[in-house]
Amino acid sequence: LWIIEWYTRLVKKIHDLPTPCLVLDLERLESNLDTMSRFAQERGIGLRPHAKTHKCTHIARRQIERGALGICVATIAEAEVMARAGIRGLLLTGEMVGEPKISRLIRVIKQAPDTMVVVDNSRNVEDLERAAGAAGIQVSALIDLDIGQNRTGIQPGEPALNLAESIGRAKHLQLKGICAYAGHVAHVVGFDERRAHSQRALAQALATRDLLRRHGHNVEILSGASTGTYNIDSYIEGMTEMQSGSYVFMDVEYRKIGGKSGSVYEDFSPALCVLSTVVHRSGNKAVVDAGLKAFSTDRPFGPEPFGIEGVAYEFAGDEHGRLVLAGGDVQLGDKLRFIIPHCDPTVNLYDRFFCIRSETVEDEWPIMERATGAPYF
Amino acid sequence: LWIIEWYTRLVKKIHDLPTPCLVLDLERLESNLDTMSRFAQERGIGLRPHAKTHKCTHIARRQIERGALGICVATIAEAEVMARAGIRGLLLTGEMVGEPKISRLIRVIKQAPDTMVVVDNSRNVEDLERAAGAAGIQVSALIDLDIGQNRTGIQPGEPALNLAESIGRAKHLQLKGICAYAGHVAHVVGFDERRAHSQRALAQALATRDLLRRHGHNVEILSGASTGTYNIDSYIEGMTEMQSGSYVFMDVEYRKIGGKSGSVYEDFSPALCVLSTVVHRSGNKAVVDAGLKAFSTDRPFGPEPFGIEGVAYEFAGDEHGRLVLAGGDVQLGDKLRFIIPHCDPTVNLYDRFFCIRSETVEDEWPIMERATGAPYF
Repeated sequence: LWIIEWYTRLVKKIHDLPTPCLVLDLERLESNLDTMSRFAQERGIGLRPHAKTHKCTHIARRQIERGALGICVATIAEAEVMARAGIRGLLLTGEMVGEPKISRLIRVIKQAPDTMVVVDNSRNVEDLERAAGAAGIQVSALIDLDIGQNRTGIQPGEPALNLAESIGRAKHLQLKGICAYAGHVAHVVGFDERRAHSQRALAQALATRDLLRRHGHNVEILSGASTGTYNIDSYIEGMTEMQSGSYVFMDVEYRKIGGKSGSVYEDFSPALCVLSTVVHRSGNKAVVDAGLKAFSTDRPFGPEPFGIEGVAYEFAGDEHGRLVLAGGDVQLGDKLRFIIPHCDPTVNLYDRFFCIRSETVEDEWPIMERATGAPYF
Repeated sequence: LWIIEWYTRLVKKIHDLPTPCLVLDLERLESNLDTMSRFAQERGIGLRPHAKTHKCTHIARRQIERGALGICVATIAEAEVMARAGIRGLLLTGEMVGEPKISRLIRVIKQAPDTMVVVDNSRNVEDLERAAGAAGIQVSALIDLDIGQNRTGIQPGEPALNLAESIGRAKHLQLKGICAYAGHVAHVVGFDERRAHSQRALAQALATRDLLRRHGHNVEILSGASTGTYNIDSYIEGMTEMQSGSYVFMDVEYRKIGGKSGSVYEDFSPALCVLSTVVHRSGNKAVVDAGLKAFSTDRPFGPEPFGIEGVAYEFAGDEHGRLVLAGGDVQLGDKLRFIIPHCDPTVNLYDRFFCIRSETVEDEWPIMERATGAPYF
């Protein structure tokens, strides 16, 4: 720990940072946080932003300070880290199936009783009921509804109603509402097209909500919306809260989908970059020290050079990226920034954010443990 | 730390592990280590395996115990971790350009004086000379030769000779030889085709070696070879050592390239899997809790189910994979193993290996820090 302290004191400028690393522009981050928070307040809709994007308690706290209802998390490990840091209003958007996840969930709920978890299967309801009963606690649940993503979630209509009935029979579970996240809509290119898709998908959630209410079930929460649909879903009647996450950082992928006006989606600014060093320079080629281990690779496009023209990036192995110089130029030892292709899996590659304000390194925020999912208790 | 200890004592069976996680089959690992070590000894060639694959001092130590000359590393952070753990004979296969890398390299060399580093640029030679002179130490260098990968490395022939001359003029640098890694050949499908490619690539390294020797330069080391070419390059006259790395774990990619006989490359066994939990089951679909954050995504193929037939995996988001059931079946809560698509960037996603022997969890080995590259001193 003294190492990190010593190091933080020593490093003052972005140019001194070890590469590859994540640099987070605090001004842009704060502007993104403010924009979304203001939007939600003006629209009169709740905001429970998703922490799967940042995996960082420092950012979660800033979201709560700006009025967020709580924080969405995708994994039990994320829930544990957030609960331990005192973040409340957690919504686990992934099903907690089997051991050891259920017992870890019970421990989180003991620490943070207002934690909610999604369910999509009556066998899982029974397992949760048994564990909650044994622990003597209440578990708040949302029905995870599949509105077209074809991943987890129960089908809308009768299947969802049957699941609500099993939750109703479970003495230690309380139905709070519906989670209707349309992940397949988030990146539809073109605002009008995206709006049409999202409205179609959410119509099924509204119909299911009405069906459940007609049968006496509590649906006080209807949660949905991505960064791509925050200004679409928030206009849908009865949507109570949004779980958008990527807006804090943005990425190449979201910039490509287009905004309400304009072909680049610029409601939020790209706040997160990977910083790299030029480690080779010859002919019209340069090589940086950021490759497959430094950027997400799940999309058919790579990172975009930031603040420099005429330079294109291509992956060149685990630790290297090749820059094709077409007009632009760089020198050996130059530090270059890149907008990340897809924010969530890129953040997942790093241990910390180096937080900058213009060229000064102001802070260092840890990113929680990797995918291992080992317990924190 | 007591948490990890308590946890390790508690968890005894693979079924109890938190998912997603990496499970390393120790019997297969040991068999892979033995096979490669025996092969190198029989061929009379040195082995300095690459640690960019495993990023783990426990595995590096087992390689050294079996006769490896040392360990190759790709980044300064890897070098630091290995040096601190007492591993010697380090070869840094990535150029150390600019601050803070050069000063970190100097500290590693003070701790582990036989550390070698590659160079491909005379300006870098000058920077290293200045830093080594100021520190009063000697730096052992290999010329990084571009034999077709078109990444880092200087061109063979005259350009390499000129670089050798600058190294010769630097009082604090000692030329040890040539690093000629043909990364573009490692995954050529078909043994004969791969051999032809590798021989063509390495012919340039041999010619450059001869040219350097004719001019009085020391080329005692000629390093190359991947897991795909260990049984090709080791038959090339004058190759002194191999830097193969992936053989410890294997992956889907290497299995596809074909062996000396047979269409699946099975000289080494797949020793590393991702363990996941089935968190959704409906129709002919199941969903596991391992997605884009749990597997490498840099190749046009995904993970392969291990020990189960009639089940195909497709990525379904950051934390999810979709299983299409065609003949095979799984139940909610089942734990499934997958052979990883590409080993290096998959290991890079995790904090530890859970080491198993048949179904028992025998040990837990830390994987070094992620891509951040922050210093360890």
